[in-house]
Amino acid sequence: MKPVCLVVGAGAGIGGTTGKRFAAEGYHSVLCRRSDQEGLNTLVADIQADGNDATGFLFNVTNEGAIETLIATVEKDIGPIEVVIFNLGAQIGDRDLSDTSYKAFERCWHIATFSLFRTASVVCPLMVARGNSSIIVTSATAAVRGNAGQHAHASAMGGRRMLCQSLSAEFGPKGLHIAHVIVDGAVDAPDTLGKMLGEERFKTLRETRGLEHDGLILPEKVADTYLHLAKQHRSTWTHELDIRSFTDLAWWNH
Amino acid sequence: MKPVCLVVGAGAGIGGTTGKRFAAEGYHSVLCRRSDQEGLNTLVADIQADGNDATGFLFNVTNEGAIETLIATVEKDIGPIEVVIFNLGAQIGDRDLSDTSYKAFERCWHIATFSLFRTASVVCPLMVARGNSSIIVTSATAAVRGNAGQHAHASAMGGRRMLCQSLSAEFGPKGLHIAHVIVDGAVDAPDTLGKMLGEERFKTLRETRGLEHDGLILPEKVADTYLHLAKQHRSTWTHELDIRSFTDLAWWNH
Amino acid sequence: MKPVCLVVGAGAGIGGTTGKRFAAEGYHSVLCRRSDQEGLNTLVADIQADGNDATGFLFNVTNEGAIETLIATVEKDIGPIEVVIFNLGAQIGDRDLSDTSYKAFERCWHIATFSLFRTASVVCPLMVARGNSSIIVTSATAAVRGNAGQHAHASAMGGRRMLCQSLSAEFGPKGLHIAHVIVDGAVDAPDTLGKMLGEERFKTLRETRGLEHDGLILPEKVADTYLHLAKQHRSTWTHELDIRSFTDLAWWNH
Amino acid sequence: MKPVCLVVGAGAGIGGTTGKRFAAEGYHSVLCRRSDQEGLNTLVADIQADGNDATGFLFNVTNEGAIETLIATVEKDIGPIEVVIFNLGAQIGDRDLSDTSYKAFERCWHIATFSLFRTASVVCPLMVARGNSSIIVTSATAAVRGNAGQHAHASAMGGRRMLCQSLSAEFGPKGLHIAHVIVDGAVDAPDTLGKMLGEERFKTLRETRGLEHDGLILPEKVADTYLHLAKQHRSTWTHELDIRSFTDLAWWNH
Repeated sequence: MKPVCLVVGAGAGIGGTTGKRFAAEGYHSVLCRRSDQEGLNTLVADIQADGNDATGFLFNVTNEGAIETLIATVEKDIGPIEVVIFNLGAQIGDRDLSDTSYKAFERCWHIATFSLFRTASVVCPLMVARGNSSIIVTSATAAVRGNAGQHAHASAMGGRRMLCQSLSAEFGPKGLHIAHVIVDGAVDAPDTLGKMLGEERFKTLRETRGLEHDGLILPEKVADTYLHLAKQHRSTWTHELDIRSFTDLAWWNH
Repeated sequence: MKPVCLVVGAGAGIGGTTGKRFAAEGYHSVLCRRSDQEGLNTLVADIQADGNDATGFLFNVTNEGAIETLIATVEKDIGPIEVVIFNLGAQIGDRDLSDTSYKAFERCWHIATFSLFRTASVVCPLMVARGNSSIIVTSATAAVRGNAGQHAHASAMGGRRMLCQSLSAEFGPKGLHIAHVIVDGAVDAPDTLGKMLGEERFKTLRETRGLEHDGLILPEKVADTYLHLAKQHRSTWTHELDIRSFTDLAWWNH
Repeated sequence: MKPVCLVVGAGAGIGGTTGKRFAAEGYHSVLCRRSDQEGLNTLVADIQADGNDATGFLFNVTNEGAIETLIATVEKDIGPIEVVIFNLGAQIGDRDLSDTSYKAFERCWHIATFSLFRTASVVCPLMVARGNSSIIVTSATAAVRGNAGQHAHASAMGGRRMLCQSLSAEFGPKGLHIAHVIVDGAVDAPDTLGKMLGEERFKTLRETRGLEHDGLILPEKVADTYLHLAKQHRSTWTHELDIRSFTDLAWWNH
Repeated sequence: MKPVCLVVGAGAGIGGTTGKRFAAEGYHSVLCRRSDQEGLNTLVADIQADGNDATGFLFNVTNEGAIETLIATVEKDIGPIEVVIFNLGAQIGDRDLSDTSYKAFERCWHIATFSLFRTASVVCPLMVARGNSSIIVTSATAAVRGNAGQHAHASAMGGRRMLCQSLSAEFGPKGLHIAHVIVDGAVDAPDTLGKMLGEERFKTLRETRGLEHDGLILPEKVADTYLHLAKQHRSTWTHELDIRSFTDLAWWNH
């Protein structure tokens, strides 16, 4: 039975691409996302076409018991979860305080912070018992600095980062590698950036900054680093690293 | 009509003491806390005995509309809120992940992060319209580093810190001073530390580290710094500072 | 005999103004600077005209023994140094790596880092023996983030910041308050900003952003905060804080 | 002609091991260290025995022109430097301020900060002209927090970190990848930790925390991460990461 790489938040960007990469390395990739059954099917079929293993689930992480049930199902029917790629984004765009509803603020936290806590609550005991496991958390610039228009996103991601540190402090010495990855720039991903910008603007951005300019972060290159993190020897673990295109200034410079 | 200093979280520690201090400086201090009508009455009476103005409210910040109604009442009946001392703590003690319930995690966030967001949502527009206002937020070591046993507290305080930064980025240029104070050590406060430790251990701690040893942070000295922050000229604002006893190592050293 | 406030780097900006402020509070202010005897005389005369005490020294901190001799002289002839305002700047302007000579890089470190180390080496033992003393260090954005053109300045200020932390870790528990102040913005100071920009541009900047706009940090307001730091009770010390005009974004936002 | 991996500070720990690893990947590894011709010969012979290329140089980085001449020689006689592993340590042990001489403080800075600046001054123009190059800098906990006894080390490493940020800001957009690696724990290295502790204590430490306990950072595992950094695609660069054994708490937790 193959070990499982559970990707929470598996769109056609970092999540799906990382799932594909881990599948190629011998994991059974379980891809979970909120919507778009067709897109999910495409990702799974793409992995299977390479002769590798993948299963897809649609689920709404904010539903009571959703992630807990999913993990139980995976563990029972597919295999032991050895790696979690926690990749749920919670960017709701630039919004002034007056445009940030209580509901949006709470929802952002629910997705970015609380759902990681719920996932960890269920999966950490399993991982500790088995050893040799990793939780790799995609995070954002907003986790390390608040900015105008980012009230919901920054506070949720700041919560996510501190949670990663507290989880690492408890579970690191028990053999569970928790890594917090600050994705500090725009990712060349149709399911997130593409949807936020709209088709036309995304196309223009790719042509002016992306593609051969390498000015957008490439999901398959992020997957390289995620794989490296998952394979780091326990004598030499990285808890936090940043990622950006060479064309971008670091968050502390703009 | 005196300007109001609204203290959200006014026990017999930093909150109550700061309220007293601002009242002595000419503010009408409005003290809010969750429970202990008697303790609240004592704080209010103590301020009034000095010939200064104070009003007390019991309220549960997690109740829907509670803080919003309170602010409306204060603005209508008492005066314009010029300073908010946001002093709600959310320390639930050291708890392993397995001992941190979903409910506790959510409640911690509700108090530490969401209630600040709600307060800011209501009070910032009022303050911007009037100018010359401050929100001073008591925070904790857990806002800058996660630690074992601090899953709920660290993620909630990390969210609080990033929220303070995003609020400051939006409202600073509009004349609203937002300060995030990292209280990095034990405070000599019967209503928080005292209750957490129990009477005996608190007494022992005060005798061995507190009192003339000055090894516990004194609320009235914190009030000095809060007052300084509230009075800083807008050409020279501090957004973040740390506070600890000289006997304590900084959080980055232990 | 009055206690001494030793200002290392006392031009007509934060240094001189803080010296004046501490003199008004009962200190004998000793103002040291590298050049401009006339400017120094003016500062001293200005303080004395208020009936307060000040003495001025010209000295070159990079000369061997210069700061050591100065401290010995002050202690012998004027009084015990209770407060050091360490205010030497080392901004050499934006310079590409290719325009940053070895000599400039070393000189920057000598002024910003090594001279603080030398000062501390001499003054800390004296202060520990007497208790109740402070070293307040003016620092810069460059201490917390490197930027293009800031190779010499950032590495020197980064060294200064870490030195303040190591000094605080050793001497804090011995009763010596060390504070690191991140001045995160332009200061309305003719001797530094004025000289860097030239008379015309400085005049324009003051008219468009400074003066009643309060968009430049005012030295006399910085002096308020320095005085507050020096007076903080030892149960409640601040090690680090930032300062900027309300019109400016924090360094982490640009 | 093979591209060169220049290892500045190549003892039998991270430096030598990384040099060996890059040689196995097709680089000509140039190993430089201050002393121990025999140890250096062993490292070089070990690499050559695998059929890979290496050259060793003894040099004293603090000598005027030493690193500059070395780089010129390498570029002329061996090949174009594509990767620099800057691995000079500057830990002088725990020393109170009174035990930290001016000379030791200056020497520490010279090795940790100034020699990186000198190296970068010479090598960056060459790298920019050729593109596709990396400077990977080994750094230490002391780069991010000062501690008692670490006056020289922390201020030098803090300077190193800020220099890496300023170099990255200038040269990143020009295609030069600069990475700052915070080695946050003890490394299983006879030439550094071994010499600091002495043979007996090092042996005991290895037996109780190292070896199969994986409680010491293994140089060959660090080399994996350095290689990963050097191979990261320019759309997805990491500037900073931390490394520690799973048994160790992160620096922010102790």
